[in-house]
Amino acid sequence: MKHVVIVGAGFGGIRVAKVLARSDIKVTVIDKRNYHLFQPLLYQVSTAGLSVDDIAYPVRAILSNFPNVHFHMDEVINVDFAKQCVIGNMGSVDYDYLVLAPGGMTNYFGMESVAKHSYGLKNLDEAVSIRNHVLRKFEEAAFEENPDRQKALLTFVIVGGGPTGVESAGALSELIYHVMAKEYHNIDFTQVRIVLIEASDKLLAAMPQDLGEATRDILSEKNIEVRLNVQVADYNGEQLTLTGGETIQTHTVIWAAGVRAADLLDKLPVRQGHLCRAVVNEYLQLPEHPEVFVIGDASHFEQNGRPLPMIAPVAIQQADVAATNILNRINGKPLQRFVFKSVGNMATIGRNAAVVHIGNIKLKGFFAWLLWSVIHIWRLIDFRNRTVVFMKWIWDYLFYERAVRIITRQ
Amino acid sequence: MKHVVIVGAGFGGIRVAKVLARSDIKVTVIDKRNYHLFQPLLYQVSTAGLSVDDIAYPVRAILSNFPNVHFHMDEVINVDFAKQCVIGNMGSVDYDYLVLAPGGMTNYFGMESVAKHSYGLKNLDEAVSIRNHVLRKFEEAAFEENPDRQKALLTFVIVGGGPTGVESAGALSELIYHVMAKEYHNIDFTQVRIVLIEASDKLLAAMPQDLGEATRDILSEKNIEVRLNVQVADYNGEQLTLTGGETIQTHTVIWAAGVRAADLLDKLPVRQGHLCRAVVNEYLQLPEHPEVFVIGDASHFEQNGRPLPMIAPVAIQQADVAATNILNRINGKPLQRFVFKSVGNMATIGRNAAVVHIGNIKLKGFFAWLLWSVIHIWRLIDFRNRTVVFMKWIWDYLFYERAVRIITRQ
Repeated sequence: MKHVVIVGAGFGGIRVAKVLARSDIKVTVIDKRNYHLFQPLLYQVSTAGLSVDDIAYPVRAILSNFPNVHFHMDEVINVDFAKQCVIGNMGSVDYDYLVLAPGGMTNYFGMESVAKHSYGLKNLDEAVSIRNHVLRKFEEAAFEENPDRQKALLTFVIVGGGPTGVESAGALSELIYHVMAKEYHNIDFTQVRIVLIEASDKLLAAMPQDLGEATRDILSEKNIEVRLNVQVADYNGEQLTLTGGETIQTHTVIWAAGVRAADLLDKLPVRQGHLCRAVVNEYLQLPEHPEVFVIGDASHFEQNGRPLPMIAPVAIQQADVAATNILNRINGKPLQRFVFKSVGNMATIGRNAAVVHIGNIKLKGFFAWLLWSVIHIWRLIDFRNRTVVFMKWIWDYLFYERAVRIITRQ
Repeated sequence: MKHVVIVGAGFGGIRVAKVLARSDIKVTVIDKRNYHLFQPLLYQVSTAGLSVDDIAYPVRAILSNFPNVHFHMDEVINVDFAKQCVIGNMGSVDYDYLVLAPGGMTNYFGMESVAKHSYGLKNLDEAVSIRNHVLRKFEEAAFEENPDRQKALLTFVIVGGGPTGVESAGALSELIYHVMAKEYHNIDFTQVRIVLIEASDKLLAAMPQDLGEATRDILSEKNIEVRLNVQVADYNGEQLTLTGGETIQTHTVIWAAGVRAADLLDKLPVRQGHLCRAVVNEYLQLPEHPEVFVIGDASHFEQNGRPLPMIAPVAIQQADVAATNILNRINGKPLQRFVFKSVGNMATIGRNAAVVHIGNIKLKGFFAWLLWSVIHIWRLIDFRNRTVVFMKWIWDYLFYERAVRIITRQ
């Protein structure tokens, strides 16, 4: 029986496993974490809207109905393409076919001081760290008598005007002005400052121009200062320096300005393209190793002369093609070429407000938000927690409350 | 305006704050954590039945409706009784009246090797550590080829036959045999061993003899080995040695055999009684400092010649008397003597099974379990998360599922 090893239990890896589960193949999913993460809602954990468990679900629970699919929790540290085996901390696993789907990680573009002092938002630990940090800054501010230092404790900077930055800024504004404002009686909330910094001249660059402008207006209404055409030069944990020399005193910088492929790829003999991703051929194979497929955030695939973005729909569509091509190779059939079909773009900016762009349809405001909510709950269905998430949202919507505001890991 | 400082946001501290909230007094609650913890369900977090957020609720949210009650997150490291001020890491806070309600902590009775290698179950971090550890041992066992080592990875020892030990053992058995057994196809679950160790000759010593025996029978049906009249002599992380010389190879020892008062008391000039608790007078005051009250797990109060147990009902009843006595002192009224009224004892041993002893009523089995569930959900009501907890229980009951099985903090 052929053995397919899948590295990574993200959207791409899990999808490959589910497709192959119906066939007469042994499948092993390897991940250093024992859970699948619903990344699109990660910013809700960082802003105390959802619990860790609402968006993380055990891989074994997802795969429990498939007797031919196994899970192995281990960190993959190398791959021996010649011997066809995956090497982890606990041991090695041989494969006939390999699917590399290790995902992405925060990219600080080599700025070490920024990497050291700011918070990424690409995995669950980072999200919980942001939540703990923001809540702790409010506790410190409540006891702080020096007005300059209090102001710095209450200044929150988000870097990056893409969906993650926009969604984080919107959710942070609501957490602060609608929830925290009711409970910190001795803090003057006019001292709070939320700044969103974007290097280019527009927000949500993948969206049509007018939706980006609408996003900017909505963020402004939420007391968020949007700063375009400016970049971060340095950050020492208390002072953020922008290109041009302007400084902002802040204890909190959330870095949503860049991602790159997982650093596992740096150790492998593969050609790395844009954002360190592994360059694959039209069938998603490594050119020198046709039994190895790379999909999702770790895969560099060009379409219409441009590399595809690092988003879940790409990973899921690539997973279908990679799984089909493994079956086709086993069965001696011709391989299928990968072509990405856009499913549209959307971003939520908070309560009642989102922007949606699907085909020729452009929506903004309440109905866009409703559509965003329905689609995200629908997508969570595969991972069971929909009822709890849905109830929490309804509850939060009605009562402007966030129950998850506990500071863990003291 | 008089200023009452309350150290600790557990059952006792929160209760004092709520009683005093109705009066013309400034109240400050200080705790090193920003959440109140519903301790009776802590074992459910350690066995993946509930999320951290289900039993932890922000103190500020609990107190948000009381403008005269403030919260200050800080670790209290000392009290200056002469100057009437509480000293924390962030600064000091003056008081007119002080309520010390810092709670309890795990007591290893000076056994350092046991303290180092086993897991306590008295705070949220400990509960999450147990959850992560147990899940990780199963992942390791699934990949382990040495049968002796696999057996040791699958051996779980719980020390202490009180409610915490009994409830943990029952919940662990259900997690393993009803949930994990479905997902680890290559583990032989007859290799799993759960051992409950108790130094005395009975379980649940506070209960009538026959309920303790019924508990033992129910645990045996759940594949738990109950060992009475034996104590732990040593544990090095892989081998547990019992008095008498018997050894058990195990990577997991959960220590539910002892609690003591918070170690803050060790630093204060107070007389410490049984389990390091501060000895108080009949009005719950420190004899030398009538403006200082000590309640809950930190308070040594004797009734009928025996110190009261460290349980929530004692803390809550003491909170009412301490709050009343503070008001009475301010208003020049005579103080109220504290008398504990037993509310009964109960412990759940898992699905459909509990033991309950209230007054002359003794119950065991399904109806005891139903009563236990209703009472605990009712008590959670004060802290809001009842709906989520209730839904999760219903879900788990119907589907034998535990969604919280994610390993955090890698």
